[in-house]
Amino acid sequence: MADESLSASVVGGSGFTGGELLRLIDAHSGLEIQQATSRSYDGKSVGSVHPNLRGTDLRFSDPEDLESVDVLFTATPHGVSMEQVDTFREVADTVVDLSADFRLDSEAQYDEWYDGHSRPELLDEAEYALPEINRENLVGADLIASGGCNATATILGLYPLFEHGVLSGSEQVVVDVKVGSSEGGAGGGEASSHPERSGVVRPYAPKGHRHEAEIEQFLGTSVSFTCHAVDMTRGASATCHVFPDGPVSKGDLWGAYRETYEDEPFMRMAAGGSGVYRYPEPKAVAGTNYGEVGFELDPSNKRVVVFSAIDNMMKGSAGQAVHAANVALGFEETAGLEFQGLHPVGAP
Amino acid sequence: MADESLSASVVGGSGFTGGELLRLIDAHSGLEIQQATSRSYDGKSVGSVHPNLRGTDLRFSDPEDLESVDVLFTATPHGVSMEQVDTFREVADTVVDLSADFRLDSEAQYDEWYDGHSRPELLDEAEYALPEINRENLVGADLIASGGCNATATILGLYPLFEHGVLSGSEQVVVDVKVGSSEGGAGGGEASSHPERSGVVRPYAPKGHRHEAEIEQFLGTSVSFTCHAVDMTRGASATCHVFPDGPVSKGDLWGAYRETYEDEPFMRMAAGGSGVYRYPEPKAVAGTNYGEVGFELDPSNKRVVVFSAIDNMMKGSAGQAVHAANVALGFEETAGLEFQGLHPVGAP
Amino acid sequence: MADESLSASVVGGSGFTGGELLRLIDAHSGLEIQQATSRSYDGKSVGSVHPNLRGTDLRFSDPEDLESVDVLFTATPHGVSMEQVDTFREVADTVVDLSADFRLDSEAQYDEWYDGHSRPELLDEAEYALPEINRENLVGADLIASGGCNATATILGLYPLFEHGVLSGSEQVVVDVKVGSSEGGAGGGEASSHPERSGVVRPYAPKGHRHEAEIEQFLGTSVSFTCHAVDMTRGASATCHVFPDGPVSKGDLWGAYRETYEDEPFMRMAAGGSGVYRYPEPKAVAGTNYGEVGFELDPSNKRVVVFSAIDNMMKGSAGQAVHAANVALGFEETAGLEFQGLHPVGAP
Amino acid sequence: MADESLSASVVGGSGFTGGELLRLIDAHSGLEIQQATSRSYDGKSVGSVHPNLRGTDLRFSDPEDLESVDVLFTATPHGVSMEQVDTFREVADTVVDLSADFRLDSEAQYDEWYDGHSRPELLDEAEYALPEINRENLVGADLIASGGCNATATILGLYPLFEHGVLSGSEQVVVDVKVGSSEGGAGGGEASSHPERSGVVRPYAPKGHRHEAEIEQFLGTSVSFTCHAVDMTRGASATCHVFPDGPVSKGDLWGAYRETYEDEPFMRMAAGGSGVYRYPEPKAVAGTNYGEVGFELDPSNKRVVVFSAIDNMMKGSAGQAVHAANVALGFEETAGLEFQGLHPVGAP
Repeated sequence: MADESLSASVVGGSGFTGGELLRLIDAHSGLEIQQATSRSYDGKSVGSVHPNLRGTDLRFSDPEDLESVDVLFTATPHGVSMEQVDTFREVADTVVDLSADFRLDSEAQYDEWYDGHSRPELLDEAEYALPEINRENLVGADLIASGGCNATATILGLYPLFEHGVLSGSEQVVVDVKVGSSEGGAGGGEASSHPERSGVVRPYAPKGHRHEAEIEQFLGTSVSFTCHAVDMTRGASATCHVFPDGPVSKGDLWGAYRETYEDEPFMRMAAGGSGVYRYPEPKAVAGTNYGEVGFELDPSNKRVVVFSAIDNMMKGSAGQAVHAANVALGFEETAGLEFQGLHPVGAP
Repeated sequence: MADESLSASVVGGSGFTGGELLRLIDAHSGLEIQQATSRSYDGKSVGSVHPNLRGTDLRFSDPEDLESVDVLFTATPHGVSMEQVDTFREVADTVVDLSADFRLDSEAQYDEWYDGHSRPELLDEAEYALPEINRENLVGADLIASGGCNATATILGLYPLFEHGVLSGSEQVVVDVKVGSSEGGAGGGEASSHPERSGVVRPYAPKGHRHEAEIEQFLGTSVSFTCHAVDMTRGASATCHVFPDGPVSKGDLWGAYRETYEDEPFMRMAAGGSGVYRYPEPKAVAGTNYGEVGFELDPSNKRVVVFSAIDNMMKGSAGQAVHAANVALGFEETAGLEFQGLHPVGAP
Repeated sequence: MADESLSASVVGGSGFTGGELLRLIDAHSGLEIQQATSRSYDGKSVGSVHPNLRGTDLRFSDPEDLESVDVLFTATPHGVSMEQVDTFREVADTVVDLSADFRLDSEAQYDEWYDGHSRPELLDEAEYALPEINRENLVGADLIASGGCNATATILGLYPLFEHGVLSGSEQVVVDVKVGSSEGGAGGGEASSHPERSGVVRPYAPKGHRHEAEIEQFLGTSVSFTCHAVDMTRGASATCHVFPDGPVSKGDLWGAYRETYEDEPFMRMAAGGSGVYRYPEPKAVAGTNYGEVGFELDPSNKRVVVFSAIDNMMKGSAGQAVHAANVALGFEETAGLEFQGLHPVGAP
Repeated sequence: MADESLSASVVGGSGFTGGELLRLIDAHSGLEIQQATSRSYDGKSVGSVHPNLRGTDLRFSDPEDLESVDVLFTATPHGVSMEQVDTFREVADTVVDLSADFRLDSEAQYDEWYDGHSRPELLDEAEYALPEINRENLVGADLIASGGCNATATILGLYPLFEHGVLSGSEQVVVDVKVGSSEGGAGGGEASSHPERSGVVRPYAPKGHRHEAEIEQFLGTSVSFTCHAVDMTRGASATCHVFPDGPVSKGDLWGAYRETYEDEPFMRMAAGGSGVYRYPEPKAVAGTNYGEVGFELDPSNKRVVVFSAIDNMMKGSAGQAVHAANVALGFEETAGLEFQGLHPVGAP
């Protein structure tokens, strides 16, 4: 149990998830920011990159000058953390990594989906950061791997159906994901430029998206996964089309979701009702660590349609990381993550 | 064969599809606009409602004062055309209806999907407006039913696979559609208001969308259809996830699409390649009558993912109507539909 | 000084500013929500209208059933509060009104700019809610008038120049404002519908905007004010073009702004520097109570260009109201208003 | 007078204005495309870069392999055309340059606003491409300089007031411009990346914008010019705040604009009226060569507010270039420029 403030640093503080981590640490009653590293912006104010943080005094440090700290959040490109993990663990008791480097359980998976792994012996030790499916193992964990945003949206949507036997793993599962432009990261590139990227419905990973590996690892089944870029900056929305073998009622579905999520501080149900907002929507959770799930039963096609929405930068990344750190370190689970989101909000 | 200009009028000229019809007729070398009716805007200039037409002199007429004309385009709410069809056919030799009233073949379908039909004896007579699947019957047709936008996107995407035996009709077909806000029509409403509608990924027809009926009618199989509102004004994009029974190669797929569409003046293929735009995108066809189709093979899931993109106001409505009229009346198929679209373009 | 929680209610809780008030009260350590009234949504959950508040249990009450409370926030249409102010003050010791009804000092101004005033004797008693220019008078105030969003943006931008003698009141002042769609309020209407409203640069108040009255009242000079709708949901940005009579240096300007705002908890300067964000931007303050001001000197035209950006729903409305209530009631000024904003964020 | 098709090539065909030129030439009854050069995309299909042109067969050529042609459009970065102008004029009888290199009349201006000029002797010979102010000199011209988009919007808005004596040149003129992201050109960059660029109201040229030079050249007075990036892809909107010395009536203003523009094929007035669209809007002219101007009289501030809207890629660049070429070569002025624009349209 954390009695007093712990110190926290962010490696890769000038990226989008790095910026979110800085914002969350700033609002966290139990954490105090020590360093934000950035090779490119070394010495510059954090607010010059993240304008929402213009009110803070913090300046970026050189990543070579990493100081000892209680918790280290590493928001580095994939492949970097596995190389630097010894340094990270040397300076910090608890390391929360936001890359893909420690999400999967086995070296074989990294060989299949990524370019292999240089420290496979740590894979077993690392804990997946999603408390909704891994809370027990996160308590006291010292190497934590924050999940992929699209995988998180999908897992949160489908996990209750597997957990409660609505799906067995032998059924066809189609996952059609829509994501915002922040997934592409800071810095630009032609496909991410505003004239090319705005207003799109663009298939960008029609098949073989690496997040399939995480989904399969936690749901125990492969999924037919396709990802589209749509016009928003934050948000990931997964529509899962599943075809249970046997008959399923709305009551069964409500039961499965309620039992799984009713005590979860960050999960909300939205399935029907009246008004404009009847199902999960990325807008409704933008800027927050909430996940929303909902469903509809389509009896004429023997189909269940599951909707899941998160903010890819939060529940799908920085928020999940802080949530997991809270569990690991004994903080209130919601510490630093109290923001309720906005209404109205455009394309956040 | 049309030797000289034919006169054309638009019933329901102040709506979105009505406005598009006026624009297309204005640019059509063989049509001359006679009337645009609007009860609410009677006497006002067309440009006061459709600002792109500010340069024209046309004013809205009272729908009661409908004059004789060669071709009548009726852009009325569903249920209106079946009541007024006798009047329409009295004033015009050729009637092209843009509502759902004459799209389906049988009274039973209207009983199942709509509120029944008051003139079922005309259903057999009416011809579906999509030349790609019904060109032969459109020649000389005098009652034409322009298709639904989501149905059109889906049919264009899947038709070649059924036509060439890649799919037999017994397979699971999931259709996940993303559409723009113009589908909601002119006039507003809370769900369509900018603060609520912008930036959404909103499931608005999770199941039981009426366009399923048209799709089933032309593909001969039911589909698991779900529709989402996304942040664009124009455009409908259908991602179809299908699971052929037997083995399928990329060559089979290219073959099926090429044979079906290679002579079509408005169909384009986009399946892979380099650069930012690799698959069909609503942006790439915005404002035009083009349809784009493409696909990807996902062998590890035995899946074919089909992408289809149209402008819902054009290929999915007004453009399709003019194209069908061109076929029916013997004009060049592309007359009035020559616009190539824009690049770059935001969220058109 | 507030030792324990005070109770707070919101009249007009289903509107946009009403929803923001509910969010802010929920996050306020010293306030506890008692009622949110809404005639249309009486009995419905607050989350069914404001999806970000889906996690709360609160339901809307009938406005006729208003209970006694410590602080009452009234987010009613203009003209309603002046009629109901006696009821409001009967149920609450402190009333914070978010309409225009008590912003101006004199009956004559309401005759000139609005449809007159039914309770002019209260105008002198009411205090304008902007602490940056009226903090002293807000302490202990029991009738507070939250300012207009466009007026707030303009006043915050120009006030330091008048306060420090850079402007005397005799100069030409042009204020060119750009605002988001939430200014139109909830509910829709054709001009606010997504297809018509998205992507616009639309002059909607070329002259004679009512906020001119507030601006004139606090700056002591008339301004040439023009307002444009642009494509964002939240935000108001004022660009003020002013032409000081005498020579002005950058140092003079920095001095004026720093002296005025350096101790203000919600004011930030942004004037030049490097990177993408060099000047005030609505995006940088979206969802927060911050105001940003900055400037540029244009010697060749003897012009100072002042930029000012706020979130119209926050600093321009609900946030300003809570800030003023904090001052009036002796809370920490930042209570309930700690949110730092997001980066990246699209069109919030 | 052009009796048969002339051949036309585009230097810099892969950029945004290059793509628009290709689209316009394709639709032009009197021009036939010969080459589109691009160093980076040499050999690739034009449609792989400009997806709206996927239906054409044209491939990019190496700029070193420029062939003889009747008209050459050069869409090169500033500074390139002045270096290569001899080559351009050798291969083509008529050269229309879309860079800034030949827009200004004197070497001194290039020294002041740009990095000097290497071929100042050609400045006098080159004709400014805007027919509304320079038609007479464009007839038969063989070196044409297409204007800057912001300058064009401003000049079109203010020119009639100077021409008809409403303004004399001694008055204060404030020009507040809002522009879309296509002004930044193809290729990206951090400030143009979608997450940073969407939803902005961003001052990007608070003072000293180079287009001031063109404006001054044609209006004969300096202007206080400030430019903001807003969330659209295409479009430039200028709001001009001017303060005439003497009394001005609405009739005077209507008179000035009507006399100047009533015979112009691409100019439209929008000043008041009813409905959603009362003033010039970039949306209303998106994709077209139209310019819209309008105004409002603000007697209490002795101000005239002028609104001007164009598509920066069209009237502000490629469309202006083709229009000028039509005048120079004796084509119908509207040839290739017949597109009427769309309604509804989002953020084109």
